[in-house]
Amino acid sequence: MSNSSTEITSECTSDTAQLISNDEASTSNYAELNQTTDIQESEEDDLQGSHGVRRRQPIQKIEPGSMNILSAKYESLDYDTCENHLLLDEERKRGYPFIIWKDIARWFIVLLIGVITALIAFIIDICIEEFSNIKYEQLKKSVDKYVLLDELYIPYLLWVLTNISIVFFGSMLVAYIEPVAGGSGIPQVKCYLNGVKVPRVVRIKTLFVKAVGVISAVVGGLAGGKEGPMIHCGAVVAAGISQGKSTTFNKDFKIFQYFREDHEKRDFVSGGAAAGVSAAFGAPIGGVLFSLEEGTSFWNQALTWRTFFGTVVSTFTLNFALSAYHGHPGDLSNPGLLNLGKMEPFPFQVYELPVFIIFGVIGGLLGALWNYINYKLAVFRMRYLGEPWLRVVEACLVAAVSATCGFLMMFLLNDCRPLGEDPTKVPLQLFCADGEYNAMAAIWFQTPEASVRSFLHDPMGSYKPGSLVIFVVSYFLLSTWTFGLAVSSGLFIPNLLTGAAWGRLMAIWIQYAIPSMSINPAKYALIGAAAQLGGVVRMTISLTVIIIETTGQISNALPIIVTLVVAKWIGDFFNEGIYDILIQLAGVPLLPWEPPPLAHNIYASEVMSHPVFTLRTVENVGHIVEMLKVVTYSGFPVVDPPLADENEVTTYKRLRGMILRSQLIVLIQNKIYNENANTTWSNLKVDMNMFRKEYPRFASIEELDISEWELTCTIDLRPFMNPSPYTLPHRASLPRLFRLFRALGLRHLPIVNDVNEVVGMVTRKDIARYRVWRHRGHMGMEELLLSSEI
Amino acid sequence: MSNSSTEITSECTSDTAQLISNDEASTSNYAELNQTTDIQESEEDDLQGSHGVRRRQPIQKIEPGSMNILSAKYESLDYDTCENHLLLDEERKRGYPFIIWKDIARWFIVLLIGVITALIAFIIDICIEEFSNIKYEQLKKSVDKYVLLDELYIPYLLWVLTNISIVFFGSMLVAYIEPVAGGSGIPQVKCYLNGVKVPRVVRIKTLFVKAVGVISAVVGGLAGGKEGPMIHCGAVVAAGISQGKSTTFNKDFKIFQYFREDHEKRDFVSGGAAAGVSAAFGAPIGGVLFSLEEGTSFWNQALTWRTFFGTVVSTFTLNFALSAYHGHPGDLSNPGLLNLGKMEPFPFQVYELPVFIIFGVIGGLLGALWNYINYKLAVFRMRYLGEPWLRVVEACLVAAVSATCGFLMMFLLNDCRPLGEDPTKVPLQLFCADGEYNAMAAIWFQTPEASVRSFLHDPMGSYKPGSLVIFVVSYFLLSTWTFGLAVSSGLFIPNLLTGAAWGRLMAIWIQYAIPSMSINPAKYALIGAAAQLGGVVRMTISLTVIIIETTGQISNALPIIVTLVVAKWIGDFFNEGIYDILIQLAGVPLLPWEPPPLAHNIYASEVMSHPVFTLRTVENVGHIVEMLKVVTYSGFPVVDPPLADENEVTTYKRLRGMILRSQLIVLIQNKIYNENANTTWSNLKVDMNMFRKEYPRFASIEELDISEWELTCTIDLRPFMNPSPYTLPHRASLPRLFRLFRALGLRHLPIVNDVNEVVGMVTRKDIARYRVWRHRGHMGMEELLLSSEI
Repeated sequence: MSNSSTEITSECTSDTAQLISNDEASTSNYAELNQTTDIQESEEDDLQGSHGVRRRQPIQKIEPGSMNILSAKYESLDYDTCENHLLLDEERKRGYPFIIWKDIARWFIVLLIGVITALIAFIIDICIEEFSNIKYEQLKKSVDKYVLLDELYIPYLLWVLTNISIVFFGSMLVAYIEPVAGGSGIPQVKCYLNGVKVPRVVRIKTLFVKAVGVISAVVGGLAGGKEGPMIHCGAVVAAGISQGKSTTFNKDFKIFQYFREDHEKRDFVSGGAAAGVSAAFGAPIGGVLFSLEEGTSFWNQALTWRTFFGTVVSTFTLNFALSAYHGHPGDLSNPGLLNLGKMEPFPFQVYELPVFIIFGVIGGLLGALWNYINYKLAVFRMRYLGEPWLRVVEACLVAAVSATCGFLMMFLLNDCRPLGEDPTKVPLQLFCADGEYNAMAAIWFQTPEASVRSFLHDPMGSYKPGSLVIFVVSYFLLSTWTFGLAVSSGLFIPNLLTGAAWGRLMAIWIQYAIPSMSINPAKYALIGAAAQLGGVVRMTISLTVIIIETTGQISNALPIIVTLVVAKWIGDFFNEGIYDILIQLAGVPLLPWEPPPLAHNIYASEVMSHPVFTLRTVENVGHIVEMLKVVTYSGFPVVDPPLADENEVTTYKRLRGMILRSQLIVLIQNKIYNENANTTWSNLKVDMNMFRKEYPRFASIEELDISEWELTCTIDLRPFMNPSPYTLPHRASLPRLFRLFRALGLRHLPIVNDVNEVVGMVTRKDIARYRVWRHRGHMGMEELLLSSEI
Repeated sequence: MSNSSTEITSECTSDTAQLISNDEASTSNYAELNQTTDIQESEEDDLQGSHGVRRRQPIQKIEPGSMNILSAKYESLDYDTCENHLLLDEERKRGYPFIIWKDIARWFIVLLIGVITALIAFIIDICIEEFSNIKYEQLKKSVDKYVLLDELYIPYLLWVLTNISIVFFGSMLVAYIEPVAGGSGIPQVKCYLNGVKVPRVVRIKTLFVKAVGVISAVVGGLAGGKEGPMIHCGAVVAAGISQGKSTTFNKDFKIFQYFREDHEKRDFVSGGAAAGVSAAFGAPIGGVLFSLEEGTSFWNQALTWRTFFGTVVSTFTLNFALSAYHGHPGDLSNPGLLNLGKMEPFPFQVYELPVFIIFGVIGGLLGALWNYINYKLAVFRMRYLGEPWLRVVEACLVAAVSATCGFLMMFLLNDCRPLGEDPTKVPLQLFCADGEYNAMAAIWFQTPEASVRSFLHDPMGSYKPGSLVIFVVSYFLLSTWTFGLAVSSGLFIPNLLTGAAWGRLMAIWIQYAIPSMSINPAKYALIGAAAQLGGVVRMTISLTVIIIETTGQISNALPIIVTLVVAKWIGDFFNEGIYDILIQLAGVPLLPWEPPPLAHNIYASEVMSHPVFTLRTVENVGHIVEMLKVVTYSGFPVVDPPLADENEVTTYKRLRGMILRSQLIVLIQNKIYNENANTTWSNLKVDMNMFRKEYPRFASIEELDISEWELTCTIDLRPFMNPSPYTLPHRASLPRLFRLFRALGLRHLPIVNDVNEVVGMVTRKDIARYRVWRHRGHMGMEELLLSSEI
């Protein structure tokens, strides 16, 4: 590189003098670069996307499954607008009509998101329902046939094989095609909305795998639900539509280009997730709250209003489609995928309050236990089940165990009930007398969702207490084993089912203890379901509203709220909500709601990474390319060159702006060099769309085709850089950094000294490293390790 | 002042040399000060609390009632933590147990807020109910007696006089004792939560006037409700309890001192407002959403969770108290003040969707008209009814007109219905046949809330269409005239009543048009009520949830949501929601949700006020006192003194921190001078509590007793100032300023140049001046005037 000034090609002679002086001036830069490159290499690639040359702790060999490590592989989203000249030009040219047009386009997109999300929900629901019906009817026929021959192992094997083959298909998709489509997708969506780029989370391929995966998981008889995946589906739909292009299909529709930036995209994704919740639970308000609670954070009325519109459209469309499918179009009686049946409003008395509190306590304890087991399983999977085929085998094993559990319960617990009111679609006689059916078979020979309905609505005395105990224990274990498998399925339904079962059990016990009381089993089953779910996920307002909307009874709100509050308190005493546990386990640098307490004595100068790699306002292409190859940072401060009359060259320079790696890449790709101003530029429209075209997947520097002569050219960064990035002085405290970062959704924050020279950079990971822990009444702060190995 | 250095007293000799150099250095400061003082004086006191020496527009003589003026009288709240040495000391000393203790205290305070708010709601409710019963029973007796003698003017006069005397009492309280207690209080609470100090809005006196005022307004027969005032009551309760002291009673309980700062107080007030909503409407979730939508903006999970707890406690306590009062304790059947009665879930069909949309359109149009009339009335009041006695006369006039309206309707519309199902407490026979009662009298001889219930629940055919038309028109006009009177009353109930009436009218028409249809009047009355209210207030999510929670039927959510969305769209086409109109009329510098569009070409250097009044890190007391007396700003940048070896003295200095007027006042009050370090300080604990003791009402500089010798002393500001305030460069754009300001709740934002010298200050009013307007499909930006006259 140092001999580049002697190899100036004819194309670049116009600016030779400036070039030479540039090169000379950058010598010190290069020295610095080389020096730090050594550090870089010795630490291998752990700096991916972070500014952390300086670390408090050395990087150690890390066992996967640790809870106090941040993974270096996650990039951040950038919600700060780059107010460069191009943006100003565009604003000036387009004016207010463009603002109104953009607003109309946003509403239209939200409408599309609502409709399409609902249609996907509709297809998933219909598939699950129809396939399950076929499966269980065939099984019933087989049971009915072989129970007389005393060869029940045949339907059992049939059941196991059916489950395994269906789950095998879904699991193969997840394990080999798109692992990020596994699970419920809620933690991934939560991370995305919080501002962390989870790779491939909003791609069309993910949507496909998710949709097919969830059908196979539920039809395959796993203890999972279809509601969580719907939220993820909504998010993908939103990301796809709002960008007007699909990278999977390599198709650019050239529409909605002005929404191709992190902020706009995030707003749409948050709306899509809300539409997903709305479709899953028939809960338009709950959907809005979910997206607020998990994502947007800042309550923007226009956005909330639009999200609300999307959720209403989604509920309405799904309602309409399902009603039409079920033969009574226009009746609008199917508000969501999760249909818990019509709950009656139940009156309650003050003296029942302790009962609700006890339910909350049980839910909190069971939820914490569920989370603990699931956490241990997740760690086990990270350590020993790294290979995709092992994950597929595990999923098939669980499918087999699920069927076995069901079979054993049906076979051993001969819980016979009179057929009377026909509470099940597929009543199985098994060993029961004529006119009776096996209550356990009724529970197992339907989708988990239908089982929740049974527990909520069946009359008192439909189940033996003994059967319920065995069911609760086995389903509790099955569901915690299932969540985290390489299949797409959620945890709402299985937990509601477990909770409804033990709620009903409690109702039986209360009835037994106080025979004079008239017990409504539906009430206790519902409260139990809420308590169990609340103990596991620990969401607050949004969950409450979702449950209330799903059951369709606002008058039951107070008992549900009391139970959820208690369940959260009790659960939080032991561990975090399951989503937070999984996020921590993945080492995602999620920012909490508030800065850690007692951190006012930690200063920016300790948090920041330094030295900083800077660019000059007019920079040599060779230097830029070199730097992009050597370091992995995604943003660079643009600084004034050192003053000519200064005797000693200072290391840090006065901040003029910030430029992103992606911008530099696009500039080099399009060869926007000063030396080309009269040739290439005249054929090329240099505007915002040049950058939007590449969003969100920019080429890497290695993929660019850069000829030797280009390296000697220069780029004027000033029209492209963000001229007034937010900064903080080096003496600012961690809480101050945190608030700025969190409130504005920043990706990079340059730290300056008293005379506005850049002395360091702070990124999301630098801040997320300081985490407060709070267990069993104690609290403190820990500093997480940063690793690229998980 | 310039001869102060020759009058150094013996107490201050220790630092003479420094003092003299200080005085010399500050000469230029003083010159500048004197120069700008002239401007100050010529503009009189229009700079109150703002940094606006430089204005784009000259201050003009302003007619009250203009919509494009910002009032200079409003101060801002400051949500930025001052991270000075004292705070660090406190943190270090108290450690994590203090954090946990504070957290427990917060929950405890929220519990108290919920209980006390509910009890106040209970008292208000009982008073209104009992007094109204007495009033209407006496009136009924009188009517029954004099109708036979054909001397109906006697009960009429009795009615008018009763109304006038009750309203006179309430109106006197509001007009003479505490004008801020007038109206619903929602705009005031909204401003407070947005970060604007509305004077006296959260004082105990205001609470008292509000509570007594609302009782007198409703009992006095005005077309007002008690729900809005409950929200204000909750906010006052929260402010009172959380601060552990009352300035009205001059009592400091010395508890919860650590919550004496704007941020903490705002969080509690927002919780109190939520508890108020919750008590008013029996809507715990709606309450949380209301406080989020109007106030906190940033969704903080811990805070939301606590607010939720408060609303649940409030609903529960009120429910318990009311149930006990009504003779069935423990039944919990009275969830809120507003009891619309048990709504049945009504099925609806897709083809009804256009009907809901038409309802929304009507609601939007009527709401916009209501707002327009109310706006014109408010302007009229501002211009011609400035005197308190005029406001009292107006209130009494409306009271008389209300009674007259009612009387005329009863008298002229002889709408007789059979007594049968006894749908009213005080059935009035009037001119009806025996066994019949006057339907209009039934509506007028009860509280407006009970009338809403009648319209919702009375069977089809209870009212003649003609009576309803007259009722709708007259009540519509009465309610818009009433809102804004010098009485405490809200607009929810009257608008629900108007809407329910025209909803029922529509139901009759639809029944008439399609006789084959079975019409449920309750459904249309409810949709009409929602449409009318939505058209007036234009709240979104929170209103929807409140209505849904109040009616207790989630299954009616979809029609209500569709109607509200349409009503808002239609209404927004013509004007803003009524609260926003009132806030704009009052010239409150409320910050909108988003920065104005197309404002990237407005730079901080244009928005900011300059020159800036700065203080040096170690400052002369005389200079501080002089400056505090001359300018009215509330925050001052602390800067390095100019370097000694510089030849020319620069006007602006390098920023070291920010200090508030209130801090300076407390420092001078306690005489924390360098020269006193060995004498006074040893008797005094210099810590955060010194400042908290005075919060929130700090003395003015004129009230301080400052002797001559003190003026020559110095104060070291460094331990007290905020050492790392947020700043922006002068080339930052308005949207960038706006986002920082809004997201972090700032009060002052120093603007710096490239080398970190302060060149200007931006306050809330400087930003709020840029407002976007958006009417009938057009939009643009206007720059508001700033005036101290309104």
